[in-house]
Amino acid sequence: MQASLYFSTVEKQDIVIIGAGNVAHHLGHELSKAGHFIVQIYSKTDKSASGLAKALNTAYTTDINKINKSASFYLIAIRDDHISEVASQLNLVGKIVAHTSATVPMDVLKPASNYYGVFYPLQTLTTNRAVDFRSVPVCIEASSEPVKKKLTDIANTISKNVHYLDGEKRKALHVAAVFVNNFTNRLYHIAYEIAKSEDLDFELLKPLIKETVNKLENTIPEALQTGPASRNDLKTIEEHLYYLMDNPDFKEVYLILTESIMQANKEKSTPYE
Amino acid sequence: MQASLYFSTVEKQDIVIIGAGNVAHHLGHELSKAGHFIVQIYSKTDKSASGLAKALNTAYTTDINKINKSASFYLIAIRDDHISEVASQLNLVGKIVAHTSATVPMDVLKPASNYYGVFYPLQTLTTNRAVDFRSVPVCIEASSEPVKKKLTDIANTISKNVHYLDGEKRKALHVAAVFVNNFTNRLYHIAYEIAKSEDLDFELLKPLIKETVNKLENTIPEALQTGPASRNDLKTIEEHLYYLMDNPDFKEVYLILTESIMQANKEKSTPYE
Repeated sequence: MQASLYFSTVEKQDIVIIGAGNVAHHLGHELSKAGHFIVQIYSKTDKSASGLAKALNTAYTTDINKINKSASFYLIAIRDDHISEVASQLNLVGKIVAHTSATVPMDVLKPASNYYGVFYPLQTLTTNRAVDFRSVPVCIEASSEPVKKKLTDIANTISKNVHYLDGEKRKALHVAAVFVNNFTNRLYHIAYEIAKSEDLDFELLKPLIKETVNKLENTIPEALQTGPASRNDLKTIEEHLYYLMDNPDFKEVYLILTESIMQANKEKSTPYE
Repeated sequence: MQASLYFSTVEKQDIVIIGAGNVAHHLGHELSKAGHFIVQIYSKTDKSASGLAKALNTAYTTDINKINKSASFYLIAIRDDHISEVASQLNLVGKIVAHTSATVPMDVLKPASNYYGVFYPLQTLTTNRAVDFRSVPVCIEASSEPVKKKLTDIANTISKNVHYLDGEKRKALHVAAVFVNNFTNRLYHIAYEIAKSEDLDFELLKPLIKETVNKLENTIPEALQTGPASRNDLKTIEEHLYYLMDNPDFKEVYLILTESIMQANKEKSTPYE
């Protein structure tokens, strides 16, 4: 440990990162930038393990039995459905182990250590794209108060947006994230395809896309709902459905979201029923 | 006309604005700022007509027969389903008349004048919120080349993003706009409600919402699709649907968008079937 070198009150950690995908990549870089020591990368495949190790100027292994046992913090950033199995093969008593998954319960880490928790960054991370990590919410859960304190301290070194959430809240937040990221992106894709089919540049829609988000700055989404469904404009809705009739998938998405908006209006306008 | 005062090659117009809602408000201000003369506001109701007239320091009428006949450009910014009726009551032979609707065909303006067209700003406009209008796409359609030239010149005085689109393309663009604005906002609302029900601050989701849009800067949406549906993670999808089971509306939206993403994946991965 060389914490004194960094003018920080937070102890610098010796960290092993288990995984070498997008999340491992981003957290590895952020933790390294914050002054922690990434002492090793583990990944099943040589290519990804060596790639991230090289980028972070550190060692790597593809053998789970050769994971460095002298680190202070083990961060498991792998696919949800592999976490439990990997945890059962780790033997890290006395060390802090955390996974980065929104959905996997914290307790699957019990076999790995008596100090365990979750370190979940709520953001869409792509390997070759930088994000301003200081604003990314990092959601912590921990098996005990000392672990909570430690994970919070580490998270605070890379983000100013650290929150303590239990597993249920984390799962709910992930459901909400699926709506605002995955599903929104699907809507962008549908709009892209419609524009393309008419030889229209998707760029035309970008000022609208940006303004839709900017409006959220000081208003809740419910108060910003506009459009044919919101004003019960059945004529326009029918024309749009007719336009979409050759694409049953797009049409179905249009229909369900239109019904969702109209249903909400109905509930608002008949409060006494 | 006092065009020479404005160091501009575009002739300044004397404009009557028919309508006093959000679009009338924004276009009125932008056209006025650009040096055109708003000579009159017409609206059925005294309150809205006088409100916008006052804001633009001009005259107003609530009597369609008292619309000023000496202007050069008449901009109809009213509800879609009123345009045809209002147009049939105007008698503006020799004047340029345009409506601002995405969906209403240009030809409904024929009874009003021999020079007619469409002046459709593709943006979500709210009365009390300023937008950077220079980047707002203004979509023009016109009954003849001279009208096209005139409407394009006027649009260029308020936006650097002017396009000529026929009625079919404009309607398609509007369908796409409904997806990226109205439906996206509905998804934000659903996420807001999920967060609220768990005592989570919607602010937590805003970095993700912004990054989802920022990623579009140099990548098409299809290449940005992530999440449980995209990776065929049925376990997470089932858990999310279970979480949403008390809200059939939210659950249905989740299901349809998940199916839409999975369907797209299937089409990509089995190109020979």
